[in-house]
Amino acid sequence: MILIHTPSSKEVAAYLEQFRAALPQQRFITLDEMIEPEAVRYVITWGPPPALFAGLPNLQAVFALGAGVDKLLARDDLSPQTPIYRLLDGGMAQQMSEYIRFGVLSYQRHMDVYRRQQAAGVWKMLAPKLPAQVRVGVLGLGEIGSAVAQALAADGYRVSGWSRTPRQVPGVDCLFGDEGLDELLAGSEVLACVLPSTPQTQRLLDAQRLAALPPGAMLINAGRGDLLDEDALLALLDSGHLRCAQLDVFASEPLPHGHRLWQHPAVTVTPHIAAITLREEAVRQIAANLARLAAGEDAQGRVLRERGY
Amino acid sequence: MILIHTPSSKEVAAYLEQFRAALPQQRFITLDEMIEPEAVRYVITWGPPPALFAGLPNLQAVFALGAGVDKLLARDDLSPQTPIYRLLDGGMAQQMSEYIRFGVLSYQRHMDVYRRQQAAGVWKMLAPKLPAQVRVGVLGLGEIGSAVAQALAADGYRVSGWSRTPRQVPGVDCLFGDEGLDELLAGSEVLACVLPSTPQTQRLLDAQRLAALPPGAMLINAGRGDLLDEDALLALLDSGHLRCAQLDVFASEPLPHGHRLWQHPAVTVTPHIAAITLREEAVRQIAANLARLAAGEDAQGRVLRERGY
Repeated sequence: MILIHTPSSKEVAAYLEQFRAALPQQRFITLDEMIEPEAVRYVITWGPPPALFAGLPNLQAVFALGAGVDKLLARDDLSPQTPIYRLLDGGMAQQMSEYIRFGVLSYQRHMDVYRRQQAAGVWKMLAPKLPAQVRVGVLGLGEIGSAVAQALAADGYRVSGWSRTPRQVPGVDCLFGDEGLDELLAGSEVLACVLPSTPQTQRLLDAQRLAALPPGAMLINAGRGDLLDEDALLALLDSGHLRCAQLDVFASEPLPHGHRLWQHPAVTVTPHIAAITLREEAVRQIAANLARLAAGEDAQGRVLRERGY
Repeated sequence: MILIHTPSSKEVAAYLEQFRAALPQQRFITLDEMIEPEAVRYVITWGPPPALFAGLPNLQAVFALGAGVDKLLARDDLSPQTPIYRLLDGGMAQQMSEYIRFGVLSYQRHMDVYRRQQAAGVWKMLAPKLPAQVRVGVLGLGEIGSAVAQALAADGYRVSGWSRTPRQVPGVDCLFGDEGLDELLAGSEVLACVLPSTPQTQRLLDAQRLAALPPGAMLINAGRGDLLDEDALLALLDSGHLRCAQLDVFASEPLPHGHRLWQHPAVTVTPHIAAITLREEAVRQIAANLARLAAGEDAQGRVLRERGY
């Protein structure tokens, strides 16, 4: 028996219908229908309620309806022995590339400056910049980050990428480790972060590292909110060292009422939409994984706890 | 002798230096240096002062430092027999594609809605749309318009294009004439206009045609301001029939102080920067044309008065 849960009951109903169509021989249920917790072998979930897993004695695996699993790994009701599988891409690389392209294009074409000029009723042209004159740094070179970096390189930007361990991405200057990070920050007019939240990446973007960006730089954070020191970012925007920021993730989500980021003129706030799980693709991947497990094969997207994703 | 003039003396100096380097055997002068008007054979210009051409009895041709020549054609001091040459592309197709891509991406990813939500402190996700779910109509299929349409098609959007006379653009559904225009308008969630200003295109986007766009559509105008009925646009934005607009050109430029477009929450105003003449490219094209004329060959980019470009 396979339990499906998401915070929205409308979404659960949609997933239920699609999973039943994809794997008619399996039995899918919702939390409301669960009368025998011991019969549940698998859970397909996003944002499961507290203590859910503790009540499932025969749980064999959890399938996350997303690519980031930091919240699942932080739970105390899930045995470290229970495998977690996450979505691999699932249309998210394309969406993330679009979201970051929007920010980079906005920076290159001064659209953020024109927006502020408009608010002040100012008509003033700025000297145009070609893509080749804009240096973009991408933090994170997993399947999503490397797709983002390659898409930006194809647009003509000068792209560097950074990861903890060495990687190769065609058309992208790849850096790694602490030294590589210093080099990347110093050379990035736009810094685009798509890192997952792990013990190694939390608070990576602190006051010192943000200040290492060149004057007039832009920050795009579409990774996780806890990577960034929001107060440090605000201070650097206020001082004018940084020109603008496009933020999709926050230390606390939804971004709290009255938070300064909501109203800062140099900040674009989006409600964690840079890369939304596309239902059809999620069903396709998880159904294929369930079929693999049923056939005694390995499923794809297994999360390594020590790595954090 | 070749006269160079633009409204900015700093820019004139930069052009002068580059033209002298490109064609050392020719004599280039500025307006300040002109002591023998009868020696001037060619004028290279953007925004020439009134009556300039009337004082040049031996003028053989005018080279515009831009792609749009409606203002030059409207002057009464320039003989219809004097050839006008305009810039062909000159990096403008690439810039225009970026400007329109920014608007289309903004529409597809609901960035305009998130911007308004941010102003109101609202955290609310909207269902994601793929590029293939967004229908874009491009008005104008000259060298710039067809490059724009092809770039959008390459991004995955469903692109239609319209021109007065039939054209073929790979990957783009091409329509033409009055009937084609009605069809294009009815099917365009984003309408991107890059038409030149001619007697045929002035006021093309009137109240009736704008109302023919589907509910919730976006208008991008990067052609000329006199193509658009601005009051009709504002009325349709106010009524909610149109969702938003990104405008680079206006009936009167600079956009007058206190004009409603400056402050409308659904309007993005940019100061005629969608495609700025890149100096190096302009010098390259005009120098090549001057060399062609000196060799007795035809120059490129000759404007046809009856066509308007």
